[in-house]
Amino acid sequence: MTIIDFRLRPPLRGFLDTIMYSQGARRDRITGFHGMEPARSAQAQSIDLLLKEMNEAGITRGVAVGRYSGPYGTVSNEDVAAIVKDHPNRFIGIASIDPSNRRQAVRQIEEARAAGLVGVNIEPGAYPMPLYPDDRRLYPIYAYCEDNAIPVLMMAGGSAGPDLSYTLPVHVDRVAGDFPKMKLAIAHGGWPWVHEILHVAFRRENVYLSPDQYLCGMPGTDEYVRAANGYLSERFLYASSYPFICAKAYLAWFRTLPIREEVMERLLHRNAEAFLNLRA
Amino acid sequence: MTIIDFRLRPPLRGFLDTIMYSQGARRDRITGFHGMEPARSAQAQSIDLLLKEMNEAGITRGVAVGRYSGPYGTVSNEDVAAIVKDHPNRFIGIASIDPSNRRQAVRQIEEARAAGLVGVNIEPGAYPMPLYPDDRRLYPIYAYCEDNAIPVLMMAGGSAGPDLSYTLPVHVDRVAGDFPKMKLAIAHGGWPWVHEILHVAFRRENVYLSPDQYLCGMPGTDEYVRAANGYLSERFLYASSYPFICAKAYLAWFRTLPIREEVMERLLHRNAEAFLNLRA
Amino acid sequence: MTIIDFRLRPPLRGFLDTIMYSQGARRDRITGFHGMEPARSAQAQSIDLLLKEMNEAGITRGVAVGRYSGPYGTVSNEDVAAIVKDHPNRFIGIASIDPSNRRQAVRQIEEARAAGLVGVNIEPGAYPMPLYPDDRRLYPIYAYCEDNAIPVLMMAGGSAGPDLSYTLPVHVDRVAGDFPKMKLAIAHGGWPWVHEILHVAFRRENVYLSPDQYLCGMPGTDEYVRAANGYLSERFLYASSYPFICAKAYLAWFRTLPIREEVMERLLHRNAEAFLNLRA
Repeated sequence: MTIIDFRLRPPLRGFLDTIMYSQGARRDRITGFHGMEPARSAQAQSIDLLLKEMNEAGITRGVAVGRYSGPYGTVSNEDVAAIVKDHPNRFIGIASIDPSNRRQAVRQIEEARAAGLVGVNIEPGAYPMPLYPDDRRLYPIYAYCEDNAIPVLMMAGGSAGPDLSYTLPVHVDRVAGDFPKMKLAIAHGGWPWVHEILHVAFRRENVYLSPDQYLCGMPGTDEYVRAANGYLSERFLYASSYPFICAKAYLAWFRTLPIREEVMERLLHRNAEAFLNLRA
Repeated sequence: MTIIDFRLRPPLRGFLDTIMYSQGARRDRITGFHGMEPARSAQAQSIDLLLKEMNEAGITRGVAVGRYSGPYGTVSNEDVAAIVKDHPNRFIGIASIDPSNRRQAVRQIEEARAAGLVGVNIEPGAYPMPLYPDDRRLYPIYAYCEDNAIPVLMMAGGSAGPDLSYTLPVHVDRVAGDFPKMKLAIAHGGWPWVHEILHVAFRRENVYLSPDQYLCGMPGTDEYVRAANGYLSERFLYASSYPFICAKAYLAWFRTLPIREEVMERLLHRNAEAFLNLRA
Repeated sequence: MTIIDFRLRPPLRGFLDTIMYSQGARRDRITGFHGMEPARSAQAQSIDLLLKEMNEAGITRGVAVGRYSGPYGTVSNEDVAAIVKDHPNRFIGIASIDPSNRRQAVRQIEEARAAGLVGVNIEPGAYPMPLYPDDRRLYPIYAYCEDNAIPVLMMAGGSAGPDLSYTLPVHVDRVAGDFPKMKLAIAHGGWPWVHEILHVAFRRENVYLSPDQYLCGMPGTDEYVRAANGYLSERFLYASSYPFICAKAYLAWFRTLPIREEVMERLLHRNAEAFLNLRA
């Protein structure tokens, strides 16, 4: 079976400059908070080890998500495109943007798509000047994505901003309601606002959830899983958030969850393919 | 045993013009999200079928809640009163108001009570101009209800407004604290803010909860049930939110919940009777 | 084994003037909401009975938390210090402050420390003029505590203010992030915002949680306990919130929770000792 890990940042190029690799001790402490062991490949910053772990687990491809951030560091679209070009069957690329200039942001998206990236990542609270997801300055960019059928991945959960207000699902709810034809996947799954983001996804049928690392060892697992088995079965995305959690170990853990068999296949690849328009 | 379904909108008169009947496909999709099958009576818009389903289930009476709404449609108090008059042993009527003019709203309440309706429904986020529950324009109306011992039903949960901020229990908390002698029942039970509304009901002893359809197949069921068995045993109201969920099927499901036997009777009718002053 | 109850207000001196003792019927009704029986010592306002209950349970010491409050009443630092002096092996004292004058507040802290009190209690929403935890007027006081390594206990949960907005963990998140070296224990554990405060404690490693009475019979118990067994094992504090719950009965109940044995010892005294610098 094909398996797509919807958030998997390999130890390559600009990713190595972001704090998920440059601050290994911080990362490993977070890994421990989830009750998991660090990935050997993450600690060694070794793509060979990572590909070995993916092979052993049967993980076909990982979604390499670009980032433009002050506190967390930046990975350029050029780097993401190069990673995809070097490993065309193993990584899928998502672009990032600088939201401070809407025309430039649209150009970044156009160039990234020409280079083979398949969606746009928005991380409002992590920008050098933090924004809320429903900040007016992002609205022209959402409009462009909706009009051009570009799937949008948004980090709106976990430590996605200077404080907990940035992940309040109210903001996501407004964006999803104002752009009803824009497909919107929520990385970190809106955690810790578990009930609230599950309501947003109940009400807004363009919202996909990917709780990734926060599904594991954190409050809310049961509620996410119940929704995945139910009304979210076509809109729940499997992701490890590697290197914060070992991709291989996460998959082994994920398979122990009480997810119905026909749903499991959707979560592990079909929903991601549909979201990213990979089966066109 | 008497059974009162605290939110049951029959396929009659103005109800047929609201989107719960005029947009059947939307309603049935929501029903499916709850893991339930559509009610035959809802799909057929048949009062005879509904009464048959109620009889088969043993549901004595349903509370027909009027509505004054932009997005969801309006059911006049005259229509609700006519339904009660036509079916005096099967339906209990609750009035709605137009909050844009406080004097007119009070007149609406007075006329509705004279016509046999037993309470007032406030749906702040669903008004043509959406309001928060603690909007100052509603305060004269709350004051009138408190001073005249009129029970207030409020929709503050689910998709009760343009976005998730309208259901934030902070607003309900203020209303309940500012009008401590006003009995206030929260339809849709404050969902998805489950822990938070349970705190409000813990702190404010004039608050009743009725999670209705959101008790079923949604995150939070266990927490609601635990509170119903505990400190909310005299303030938890049974309701299906028909036609979104089949009243008969909901009751069968509800009876499978781990609710203590002496509490079950309170939930199924005694709390509703007390709230609506039906045993005077 | 040593057992420290991190929130235990004895029936002595100024505590008797606060509503936890002066409004016994209100207190006992709340106790019942938690599914517990009132403490005999609380009803009798008897320190002898309380010490007997503590002895029977094996509770070594209780943390007597001072308070400066409009709605809940005030216990002076002088009274707390006198209680500690009269019962040096049974009570540990925490000071309170008047936040309306920062210079006076610092003097209060200095005098209280000289008198043997070991930390500062901040109850923002309960002050005569309610404040949010991140109110600017509290920031000089936090700065003083951070600079002088004074542990801060904050009530930010339960009915800690005029309404539910005062306990929103967003405010605590900002304080903990802005003063990363200040040890901050959250009394009432941020309840009912269970998932959200667990996120704050996940992200901010200077935050300790003490859900005390709200751990018992309220939604969220399982999530708190899971975190206590996991990433919060060194930052979870055992407390009964006596006289709202009988200290002896609470301990018996607490011992039935599925907490790992090596963690239990941390919760029952080692974490409190570390937080309060008692092992220096």
